[in-house]
Amino acid sequence: MTKATDIHLSHADLVALLQKIFAKNGVSENNAKILAENCASCERDGSLSHGIFRMAGYVSSLNSGWVDGKAVPEVEDVGPAFVRVDAKGGFTQPAMLAARPLLIEKVKQNGVAVLAIRRSHHFSALWPDVEPFADEGFVALSVVNSMACVVPHGGKKAVFGTNPVAFASPRAGAAPFVFDQASSAIAHGDVQIAARAGHDLKPGMGVDRDGQPTNDPKAILDGGALLPFGGHKGNSIALMVEILSAALTGGYFSGEFDWSGHKGAQTPFTGQFFIVIDPARGGNDVFAERVAGICDLVLEAGQERLPGDRRHVTRAKAEKDGIPLSTENYEKLKALANA
Amino acid sequence: MTKATDIHLSHADLVALLQKIFAKNGVSENNAKILAENCASCERDGSLSHGIFRMAGYVSSLNSGWVDGKAVPEVEDVGPAFVRVDAKGGFTQPAMLAARPLLIEKVKQNGVAVLAIRRSHHFSALWPDVEPFADEGFVALSVVNSMACVVPHGGKKAVFGTNPVAFASPRAGAAPFVFDQASSAIAHGDVQIAARAGHDLKPGMGVDRDGQPTNDPKAILDGGALLPFGGHKGNSIALMVEILSAALTGGYFSGEFDWSGHKGAQTPFTGQFFIVIDPARGGNDVFAERVAGICDLVLEAGQERLPGDRRHVTRAKAEKDGIPLSTENYEKLKALANA
Repeated sequence: MTKATDIHLSHADLVALLQKIFAKNGVSENNAKILAENCASCERDGSLSHGIFRMAGYVSSLNSGWVDGKAVPEVEDVGPAFVRVDAKGGFTQPAMLAARPLLIEKVKQNGVAVLAIRRSHHFSALWPDVEPFADEGFVALSVVNSMACVVPHGGKKAVFGTNPVAFASPRAGAAPFVFDQASSAIAHGDVQIAARAGHDLKPGMGVDRDGQPTNDPKAILDGGALLPFGGHKGNSIALMVEILSAALTGGYFSGEFDWSGHKGAQTPFTGQFFIVIDPARGGNDVFAERVAGICDLVLEAGQERLPGDRRHVTRAKAEKDGIPLSTENYEKLKALANA
Repeated sequence: MTKATDIHLSHADLVALLQKIFAKNGVSENNAKILAENCASCERDGSLSHGIFRMAGYVSSLNSGWVDGKAVPEVEDVGPAFVRVDAKGGFTQPAMLAARPLLIEKVKQNGVAVLAIRRSHHFSALWPDVEPFADEGFVALSVVNSMACVVPHGGKKAVFGTNPVAFASPRAGAAPFVFDQASSAIAHGDVQIAARAGHDLKPGMGVDRDGQPTNDPKAILDGGALLPFGGHKGNSIALMVEILSAALTGGYFSGEFDWSGHKGAQTPFTGQFFIVIDPARGGNDVFAERVAGICDLVLEAGQERLPGDRRHVTRAKAEKDGIPLSTENYEKLKALANA
């Protein structure tokens, strides 16, 4: 029997393996390195729904001709504190990294700057996009829309994507405070797991194909849709994400792009928005200590853990012992790399 | 029996009456005008928990010596896109308005700018702070922390304030899209109104002084606390609001200020943060039409109404017929004005 942790790879080795897979499937060397690094980091941190689990989807989408792995993003300097990027139908991560030096320069110069990415595909977690800003001392907020699978509160037809919001802030004496949360009540993967196990969901997770509330995961998957988290409040956040990620950037709304001509396409073709703030501006040099203070208060009040903390524990273990992979998954990756 | 709509006042007349009350209670002429305008606008729009209902609390807090009605805010230009304001222990609305021309200039110049207000008291709704930015064509996001009355998710001790988030965006052919939502499952003002009216709350809104779930608003107010909306996700938003409103501005956290020496004090002494974006920057001149488009899609999908829309209906009616007040409330206001 294959144990779940048969293989342990160093982060560098996993990156190299994934990079080879991306390169084999029409991704340029620069973009392959970025995507491999991103995906390996998700696997390393235990964000397994966005780790190597996604590789088959990346490959399928690339081979469908839906996403351009060789896209060279075009960075536009449109204002002292405003950067736009046309991702040219490629992935957002290379687009973001292409704009990042200019963005950071603008944040330092002005105290805040925004980055608006359009015509971009996002297929990963959102925390890897914001955490590095906090590592450099900045506060970062990012939103990205995806593909229509969430009905508006009280509605019957999917309009929103899962539309995550991610936030990162420096925290003195600890890893940055980071959260990355979907605006939907539940992740699609968890609905699939419940369907397979034959378990009902808690109320409020989704609707069936007629827009009626259901606790049956199969009914949600069979033409139904998810609900926003937290009723009308999560709904408003999902709508704000559409406005910032698509209307403001010039990208597509979650229900707007047409991938029907690309069999196997899986990556949402939308937009992404970043707000990055320099907390040191204005002489508030105790910021990171203050953030540590409020985080401590929350833990002292009885909250079990802060979002992101479990990732850092998993990361530290992986850095010591290697990233655990099952033999089966490792063989699958090798097969993709040598296909 | 007193009907709820015995009296109808014009907005100008209600502002004048409230202004007189503020002036009687130690508020400077400039600040009284701003606060009266704000409070009357809440009443006009049907935001009753932040309308004239709050006047007794304003008066009590002013007379306790806790808030300085005569405070003159100090605006600090700390970067090309960053404004700070020391509200000097006064209300945030005059502090925001003192900084607003400089903030708008910076937004136009740079594409985005932020405003960090500290040592400020916020006792009203948040939508009046953001909606005017959208009226001028800007996208605005604001957060404000308040007083510890919300337990962290899974926790037992109140750490967060109700910590609202407000967002406003231009929308072509319609009033701006605006939401203003507490990070708590219910607004504190609504708990107070329910307690006064003797109504039970829906389940999931709060806990009593022993941390047990309760639907009794009086049990929540009597040593109990509210819960965050949407479980751990609303909780993360509440924590982000503390970080932006207090850590980043240099203000107090919701659980940090000490008003014990000021009997009758009711106004939270914290901070407030604004991000204001110029959507026209970068040539995206179809922005407002795109926002109207996604709002239409949400309504077509079956959502009953967008947040803010009911306020605009109520406002239009009040502008035609006057703002409805019960005789009892009108007499109370007159008594405060002539005290």
